[in-house]
Amino acid sequence: MNKQTLIEAHNRIEPFIHKTPVLTSQLLNEKSGCNLYFKCENFQKMGAFKMRGAANAILSLSKEERQRGVVTHSSGNFAQAVSLAAQKLGVKAYIVMPKNAPQVKKNAVKTYEGEIIECESTPQAREATANKIKEEKGASFLHPSNQDEVIYGNSTAAIELLEEQPNLDIILAPVGGGGLIAGTALAAHYFSKKCKVIGAEPKAVDDAYRSLISGKIETNTTFATIADGLRTHLGDRNFPIIQKHVEKIICVEENEIIKAMQLIWERMKIIVEPSSAVAFAAVLKNKEEFATKNIGIIISGGNVDVKNLPF
Amino acid sequence: MNKQTLIEAHNRIEPFIHKTPVLTSQLLNEKSGCNLYFKCENFQKMGAFKMRGAANAILSLSKEERQRGVVTHSSGNFAQAVSLAAQKLGVKAYIVMPKNAPQVKKNAVKTYEGEIIECESTPQAREATANKIKEEKGASFLHPSNQDEVIYGNSTAAIELLEEQPNLDIILAPVGGGGLIAGTALAAHYFSKKCKVIGAEPKAVDDAYRSLISGKIETNTTFATIADGLRTHLGDRNFPIIQKHVEKIICVEENEIIKAMQLIWERMKIIVEPSSAVAFAAVLKNKEEFATKNIGIIISGGNVDVKNLPF
Repeated sequence: MNKQTLIEAHNRIEPFIHKTPVLTSQLLNEKSGCNLYFKCENFQKMGAFKMRGAANAILSLSKEERQRGVVTHSSGNFAQAVSLAAQKLGVKAYIVMPKNAPQVKKNAVKTYEGEIIECESTPQAREATANKIKEEKGASFLHPSNQDEVIYGNSTAAIELLEEQPNLDIILAPVGGGGLIAGTALAAHYFSKKCKVIGAEPKAVDDAYRSLISGKIETNTTFATIADGLRTHLGDRNFPIIQKHVEKIICVEENEIIKAMQLIWERMKIIVEPSSAVAFAAVLKNKEEFATKNIGIIISGGNVDVKNLPF
Repeated sequence: MNKQTLIEAHNRIEPFIHKTPVLTSQLLNEKSGCNLYFKCENFQKMGAFKMRGAANAILSLSKEERQRGVVTHSSGNFAQAVSLAAQKLGVKAYIVMPKNAPQVKKNAVKTYEGEIIECESTPQAREATANKIKEEKGASFLHPSNQDEVIYGNSTAAIELLEEQPNLDIILAPVGGGGLIAGTALAAHYFSKKCKVIGAEPKAVDDAYRSLISGKIETNTTFATIADGLRTHLGDRNFPIIQKHVEKIICVEENEIIKAMQLIWERMKIIVEPSSAVAFAAVLKNKEEFATKNIGIIISGGNVDVKNLPF
């Protein structure tokens, strides 16, 4: 892949996504001591950056592949993203979800006409069920984070951010499966001469932090973080990109995530999900390091249950 | 006053306010059956349109008047707006507040260096205390809604909205003291040939609705609405403007306000205060009337206690 790969991904998905706004806040600049530029993917279609990767992955399939449909296992934003992108492209979407997934998440998928296939709530059952659909229907499997087309699609958020703010010194993005941070790192590498990329990860699920140190993919033993979008593992497609192009990963505590989230809500008047607040929490935790710099932050999404908030 | 009065107000306050964005939502358009354009004053400085009227009122004072300071009685957004506008202009702001006002509101005023003068929590005590400051300090009294300069300042939100969307058929704004709807009506009158203005008011405090019918200023007997910004009365400066230029007022129930607010939060991912949701609630309640039309909605503000939500 090269710069052209990302440009093509961007051109491919542009008709199907929002060019989301880049917001600033004088109050949050004062509070953090740097110049913050928030790329607001909470305003993206279906409410998260995942639309970019899902759209690029489906658009990269051949006509024959599209006719057989796509399948993924996810109970979160990627399930909605695949359903919506598939709906817009007239492609059948099979979404494998654990039986005990919240009804609100099932409803979101149904809104976009995704077909839900229920399974037991183990990773093994999810994979087996997805494989079965793949074989029975000939559907193409889409991974939420560990797939090249998804990573390239994700890169377009940072490409747009750098187009609007070419003077960024650093972009921070949250790290879950690694698909967003890998895409962001590729975008900075190809579209900026000086912009570095730093990941932010909840301490409770710091597999990427530990993987960068050990040089091999580490796993989490728990998923006890409020940042539900980040309760997952690095993959073998995105880890090498992260190793090569990501400066480092900063870990933050749960109370720091909640505090950062509340600050964004109260000061910027926008709704962001806990995963989105992780990068801003990393800035607040390391003010000296970021002082006076131009900092981009990818706000990954805004899908949160407003009836069940952590503050 | 004439069109030029409003243009001058806009020029006067422009350096001190944000030109707030106009947002749209495909989902809310589908849900309401019309084309909605939300003028997002929740992104205004201090989080509400009140900044516009306060800035215009202070900027309209003479140099001598500014030196003696300004005084208002408010425990809400206008207190913050006067404090911030005064701070930016190097003017002393005296804010009369009831002793039992929430600490969070007192803190907001202190952030902007407003001087709080406490009084008993009756309208009489508020007025008497404000009058005392006026006499002792020579400070100019600023009314939150019933003052020409405040109304002209408020008009600038709709002026910007009409500049960006000249094809609006109707603009809806919430009605509390009447300062926003009066300013909005003047803006539509002078800056559009076809745009009508409709007010939206909680049924629980429907003094403006009843006043338009009876032809004289009616009062509320209770203030039992969740829309805290609208717990007030029409005034003799704005009522004649409303009589002349506002098409009608639509009343909505409390549960309709809460439902509209939750829809805006969940679908648009922006934080709006209950008062702001009143106008959208009026659209949802009268879908046939607004069907297929281009509708502007003034989102009045976003100052809400995220720890204490109605849903």
